[in-house]
Amino acid sequence: MRWFGDVAGLGAWWREVRRDGATIALVPTMGYLHAGHGALMEEARRRADRVVVSIFVNPTQFGPSEDIDRYPRDLDRDRALCLARGVDAVFAPSVGEIYPSGFATTVEVAGLTSGLCGASRPGHFRGVTTVVARLFGIVRPDVAVFGEKDFQQLAVIRRMVRDLAIPLEVVGARTVREPDGLALSSRNVYLDADERARAPCIFRSLESADRAWRDGERDPARLVSLARETLESGAPVDVDYVEVVDAEDLTPLQAPALRPALLALAVRFGATRLIDNRVLGRP
Amino acid sequence: MRWFGDVAGLGAWWREVRRDGATIALVPTMGYLHAGHGALMEEARRRADRVVVSIFVNPTQFGPSEDIDRYPRDLDRDRALCLARGVDAVFAPSVGEIYPSGFATTVEVAGLTSGLCGASRPGHFRGVTTVVARLFGIVRPDVAVFGEKDFQQLAVIRRMVRDLAIPLEVVGARTVREPDGLALSSRNVYLDADERARAPCIFRSLESADRAWRDGERDPARLVSLARETLESGAPVDVDYVEVVDAEDLTPLQAPALRPALLALAVRFGATRLIDNRVLGRP
Repeated sequence: MRWFGDVAGLGAWWREVRRDGATIALVPTMGYLHAGHGALMEEARRRADRVVVSIFVNPTQFGPSEDIDRYPRDLDRDRALCLARGVDAVFAPSVGEIYPSGFATTVEVAGLTSGLCGASRPGHFRGVTTVVARLFGIVRPDVAVFGEKDFQQLAVIRRMVRDLAIPLEVVGARTVREPDGLALSSRNVYLDADERARAPCIFRSLESADRAWRDGERDPARLVSLARETLESGAPVDVDYVEVVDAEDLTPLQAPALRPALLALAVRFGATRLIDNRVLGRP
Repeated sequence: MRWFGDVAGLGAWWREVRRDGATIALVPTMGYLHAGHGALMEEARRRADRVVVSIFVNPTQFGPSEDIDRYPRDLDRDRALCLARGVDAVFAPSVGEIYPSGFATTVEVAGLTSGLCGASRPGHFRGVTTVVARLFGIVRPDVAVFGEKDFQQLAVIRRMVRDLAIPLEVVGARTVREPDGLALSSRNVYLDADERARAPCIFRSLESADRAWRDGERDPARLVSLARETLESGAPVDVDYVEVVDAEDLTPLQAPALRPALLALAVRFGATRLIDNRVLGRP
């Protein structure tokens, strides 16, 4: 497995790979890798000859009051996980390598970014699309794999790739969960024992709405109420949002919901913000 | 010469060209081609095996009070000029092909776009960078050639390409002028006989500042004064701006100017806005 900290080194490797006629899949991450990232790597492996994992905690997608300073990092563990998953190359650049002196460009997707997480994290998606556009330019993969846990991010990146005609395929991979349903996330490490014990209410909430959908419920407001009730059935929860939206363009759905619907939510346990979602009725 | 109105057709041609191992140079234009564009095509021909000219009057780079509705168009003449210059393919898409339903992405370069034309044309460069990023994604050239008459545009696109690591080389080509010094521009057709007769004051103005620079003048304010005096020596001129800036980052220069300096100006003759510039002292 190769490890690159700079654009030039990765570029030389890229030319070698292309000379061999091999295809490349990229898994962009912020590191502190877990089995959810592992599933993305496996998906990448199925899609291309070479798998590149990028590890970069991108400052521009964190708000001023967010957790960039304490965001968990462990490059040794990340390296071991990438090795175990048969990753071919890791790209772990410094901030200066991604944002060289004079960096002045932003890429932004309107509309899709205004609701859900975009509403409570202004500027977040602009940071994401900008860094991902640059990573796509540096790595030039045939395929890029993102997790569905960050469903809005996946939709935003798909739109950016389509709009800018970036020549690659965006692939979404199913969320990996703990046995009790909690979606894997690097931020789960922030949870104390009590918060961790309460966190599966998120999954139960998604499940309850999904069951109702399967039973024929198509009223977004009632699905949201049901999800919120389940969420708070144990103890009060600090809810950022619980919404049912169009699974494609993420706009609010009117009753009855006639198109594929996404239930998405964000909640806080102490200072820790967790997100999760479910495409209702999807097998 | 091939002529494509749609992305899919151009894409099929692209794959053929790449299968032959040939390189591609793109000349992005708004059509109504003249000998200045011809020089860009020649530069493109020197740089790559195949030359693509794109023709697209991009609505998003025109302000609400600007001239998009009367912007001159003549695709038959454009076709003849491209043929005569040995262009391999023309990409002349519709607005709907460039901005399909749901298009939501913008690319923006900060800083470089705030002064000069950016100050009087808010949103103009955002329109330019967005459409050029999309054209780069569609055409995927090895080289893209832009004219130095639009010096700020060239600098902005260079920055975008560097920042997003778009894998191509941006080449600037020298401005082509009429015998009396007027820079070729599709907008020159707007000038009536009187305006056309007065317009060479622009070139004389650049020349006077350039002579002063060669004689050792390094005070930006005095260079600007001299340029303005020459500009208005015949009759009053409606000046949008006359500025001396750093030729690289386009920031205002302090006296004495120690770095390569650009004199840039924009003036109006009636409703017609013309721009021109000169890197002072450059051979």
